[in-house]
Amino acid sequence: MTTKVDALGRIKAIVGERGWVADSAALEPYLAETRGLFRGAAAVVVRPGSTEEAARVVRACADAGVAMVPQGGNTGLSGGAVSPAGSVIISLARLNRIRDVDPLTYTMTVEAGCILADLQAAATQHDRLFPLSLAAEGSCQIGGNLATNAGGTAVLRYGNARDLVLGLEVVLPDGQVWDGLRRLRKDNTGYDLKNLFMGSEGTLGLITAAVLKLFPRPLDSATALVAVRDVYAAAELLARARGETGDAVSTFELMNRTCLDMVLKHVPGTVDPLAERHAQYVLIQLTTPRTDAGLTSALEDCLARAAEAGIVRDAAIAQSDAQAKAFWRLREAVSDVQKYEGGSIKHDVAVPISRISEFIDHATRRVEAELPGIRVCAFGHVGDGNVHFNLSQPIGMDTPAYLAQWGRFNQIVHDIAADMDGSFSAEHGIGRLKLGEMMHYKSPVELELMRTLKRALDPRNLMNPGKVVPFGGETMHH
Amino acid sequence: MTTKVDALGRIKAIVGERGWVADSAALEPYLAETRGLFRGAAAVVVRPGSTEEAARVVRACADAGVAMVPQGGNTGLSGGAVSPAGSVIISLARLNRIRDVDPLTYTMTVEAGCILADLQAAATQHDRLFPLSLAAEGSCQIGGNLATNAGGTAVLRYGNARDLVLGLEVVLPDGQVWDGLRRLRKDNTGYDLKNLFMGSEGTLGLITAAVLKLFPRPLDSATALVAVRDVYAAAELLARARGETGDAVSTFELMNRTCLDMVLKHVPGTVDPLAERHAQYVLIQLTTPRTDAGLTSALEDCLARAAEAGIVRDAAIAQSDAQAKAFWRLREAVSDVQKYEGGSIKHDVAVPISRISEFIDHATRRVEAELPGIRVCAFGHVGDGNVHFNLSQPIGMDTPAYLAQWGRFNQIVHDIAADMDGSFSAEHGIGRLKLGEMMHYKSPVELELMRTLKRALDPRNLMNPGKVVPFGGETMHH
Repeated sequence: MTTKVDALGRIKAIVGERGWVADSAALEPYLAETRGLFRGAAAVVVRPGSTEEAARVVRACADAGVAMVPQGGNTGLSGGAVSPAGSVIISLARLNRIRDVDPLTYTMTVEAGCILADLQAAATQHDRLFPLSLAAEGSCQIGGNLATNAGGTAVLRYGNARDLVLGLEVVLPDGQVWDGLRRLRKDNTGYDLKNLFMGSEGTLGLITAAVLKLFPRPLDSATALVAVRDVYAAAELLARARGETGDAVSTFELMNRTCLDMVLKHVPGTVDPLAERHAQYVLIQLTTPRTDAGLTSALEDCLARAAEAGIVRDAAIAQSDAQAKAFWRLREAVSDVQKYEGGSIKHDVAVPISRISEFIDHATRRVEAELPGIRVCAFGHVGDGNVHFNLSQPIGMDTPAYLAQWGRFNQIVHDIAADMDGSFSAEHGIGRLKLGEMMHYKSPVELELMRTLKRALDPRNLMNPGKVVPFGGETMHH
Repeated sequence: MTTKVDALGRIKAIVGERGWVADSAALEPYLAETRGLFRGAAAVVVRPGSTEEAARVVRACADAGVAMVPQGGNTGLSGGAVSPAGSVIISLARLNRIRDVDPLTYTMTVEAGCILADLQAAATQHDRLFPLSLAAEGSCQIGGNLATNAGGTAVLRYGNARDLVLGLEVVLPDGQVWDGLRRLRKDNTGYDLKNLFMGSEGTLGLITAAVLKLFPRPLDSATALVAVRDVYAAAELLARARGETGDAVSTFELMNRTCLDMVLKHVPGTVDPLAERHAQYVLIQLTTPRTDAGLTSALEDCLARAAEAGIVRDAAIAQSDAQAKAFWRLREAVSDVQKYEGGSIKHDVAVPISRISEFIDHATRRVEAELPGIRVCAFGHVGDGNVHFNLSQPIGMDTPAYLAQWGRFNQIVHDIAADMDGSFSAEHGIGRLKLGEMMHYKSPVELELMRTLKRALDPRNLMNPGKVVPFGGETMHH
C-alpha cells in the first residue's frame, strides 16, 4: 500500500509528461459535463499510451486506494464520467489505433480511444459498415460507447453496442488485463464476461480495446416521411414493413406535430413535405447492400397497402438523396430546437413496442392535467420502443420555475413507463443522474444482484465509484 | 439449516406426487447422457409446476445444503446435466406454458420447459419466425437452450441463443426469484444480468422463463449446393454473398468430400447433385420475408460472379422445394453417418472465419501425420467460423484402440485452434466434458473472473456443482 501522494508520482512516472494533465485550463474539458448538471473534481487526468501503461496506472491507483474515473469523449448524458474529488480521470484518448481490419470475418479490432466517426470511415474504406451511429459520433470514443452500451439510430436493424462486439480487452480494478479480444462468432466457453463490462459504465473495469462486428455496406436505400393515423398505427406500420421489405428497415423514427412545428419554426430552409397537417409522423429508411433489390418499389407497395388499411394517412417518398437528407434533417433537428422553446424536461423511456401508443396517450394526459399548456415533444427510436418523451414549458412560463419541477415530471413519466414494464433509461444509461431511479424502480433482488457483482469485481469500490449501482442513500430528484 | 432427509420431505410436500420422481425406471431418462460418456447419480428428480414451486424447491435445497442440477430435455453434448451423487435434479418440463405472444413487439414470453419445436410452431402461427434450430429441437427445452447458449444452423443470420432473448426469469441459488422478463429492445439500466445466466449451464441459477425475440417469417428462399475451389474460397464466397444477396444468407454450411462420400454410401436415395467430384462443398441458403425479392436470381448472379473469380467450381441451384430438401438432407446426414465408419473423434471448434482454411489445412496435416489413414470429416457452420473437425478411424483399425486416443487428438486439434485465437467449444458448451480444456486453454485471469462470479452468486456451490468453471484438479483427457 502506497500513499496517495506517492501514487501520483508513480503514475506520472508511468505515463510521462505526454500522459499527464494537471493544468487547470487543460483539465477543463474533462471536468465539464454535457448538460451542465454536474462538474468533475479530479485534479489530474492520466492519458496512458498503451494497454500496458493503462494497466500499470490502474495498479498504482489500486495500491494506493485512489478512485479512478474512466473517460472517453466525455459526451455522456447521465454524468457517468463525472469525477469525484480525490479521484484520477483515466482518459483513453491516446489509445486510438485500429489494430486490425478483417473484412472476410467482418470484424475490426480497435482501441478504446478511437473516435466513432473514424471507425465508421475505416469500415467504409474496407467496403464494410460499422452501424453504430449517434449524435456525438464526431467526438465520442468507442470505449465510452461500449462502456455505456450506446444506442443511436440503427439499433432497430443492428442492435445496440452490446450486439456489435465480439471481444474485449479490459483492465480489471486490480490492474490485471483480461484479454478477451476474440474474433469468434461462436465461443461457448464459460460465462459471458464481455457483456458484464459493456454497459457497466466503467464501474467494473477499464475497456482498452474491442473486436467490433462489421456488416455489408448498404448500397441502396429508400426513405419516406410518413403521416400515420396515430401512434399505434406507427407500431403496426413497423411490424408490416419489417416483413414486406425483407427486414430492410434500418430506421423508424417517430415525431409528433409539436416537434415538427418547432423544427419548421426554428431551422431555416426546412419545409413540411406533406400538404396537410397530421398529428404523428414516421421517418422510415430502408437500406440494403444489394443494388438490385427494388427497395423504393417495396417501400411504395408497403405504404400503399398500409394506406388501404387505414394505417397511413399520407407519405412522401424521397426522390433524391437531397430529399432524403432533407427528411432526415427534420428528424435530427428535433433534439436541438427544443432549447429555443424555453425549458425542456427530458425523458429517455422505453416500453414494449405494442404499448408505445398507450404510453404516449396516458403520459400526455397526465402531464397536461398536471400543468396546462405544457407541450409534449414526443419523438425517438420507436422501432426500439424508445421514446424521448420531452416536455417543453408552457409558453410564457418562467423557465427556472418550470425546470424546478424536473423531478416531479420524471417521476410521473417513469411511473407510467414502469407500470408498462418499461425502462426509465432506454439508451442513456445511469451514471450519477439516474441512481435515484435505480433505487426506486429496480426490484430489491435485481439491485442486490448488481451490488453483488460490483462487490465481487471491485471489492474496494475504486472503479468509477458512485455510478450505476446505488448502495443506498440516493434520492431520485436531482 | 435442515438436514438432507428433512429437505427431501419438504420438497416432496412442495411439488406433490406429480412433481416427484424416485422410481428407478422413471429416473432412467434423467440419468442417461446422450453420448454415454457419463451417468447421473441423483436419487430424485423434482418437477415443479410453477416458478413459485421451483423457487420453494431451490430454497429448501439451499437450506439443507443439497446440490441441484437443473435439467431441460437432457440433450446436451457436454454432460452439463449430469447429476452427482446426493444431488437433486430439478426438471423444468412441467413449466411449459407460452405466457404471451406479442407479434407487434416481435416477442414471445415462454416458460423454460417448452419444447423448442413447439415454440417454432407457435411463432409460425402468429406469422413470425423463432429462428433457433438444432438437431434436438423435437425434444430439447428452451430453458436448456438458453442455459447452454445453444447455437444451431441459423446463428449466421440470427445469432445464438444469447442474441435471441430480451428478458429472463431466474431462480437464484438461494431461492429468490429475479424477474427480468422485459420485452424491451433497449433498456440501459445497469449490469447485463441476462447474459450472465445464459450460457452458465445452470451453475448460477435456474432459468424458469424468457422473453424471446421473433422475426419476420421467411416467405421465399433459394438453396444451392456449391463446389468451391477450397476452404478459403468458401470464406470468400460467404463474404461476397452477404453483400450481394442483401445479407439474406441464413445458412452457409461446409462439408468436404469425405463427408459427402459417407452420406452417399450409407443413406439410401441420396445422390451427388454435381457431375464431378470436388474437394469442398458449401450448402448455401438465402431466405427473406419478401415475396418479390428475386432471391434465386440474386443467388445465381452471385455464384456466376464467384465462378468468374475462380472461387466457385460448380453449383446446383435447387429448382424445387424437394430438391432443396435433398440438398439439406446431404448436410444433415453428415452428423449421423460417421458412426457407420467406426470410431469418430469429434471436435466443436471455432476460429475467425478468415482463418478456417488455415485451420483445416494445418490440423489435417497434423492428424494425418499422427495416424496415417485417419479420415478428416470436416463440416459445419462455417458462416460462424464453427467447424466440426471430426476424425473417423482408419479403415480396419480396432475401434476401441482408436477411441482411446480421443484426448490426444483433442489436444492436437484444440492447440491449433487456440494458436489461431479459436475456441475449443464453439456451441456445445463446457458441462463436465470440457473442464480440463477450460483449465488448459483459458488464461488465469479469465478463469479467476469466472470463479469470482461463481463464488459471488453461488457461494455454497449448490447450483450444478462441478460444471463449467474449473476449481482445480480437472484433467483434460476424459
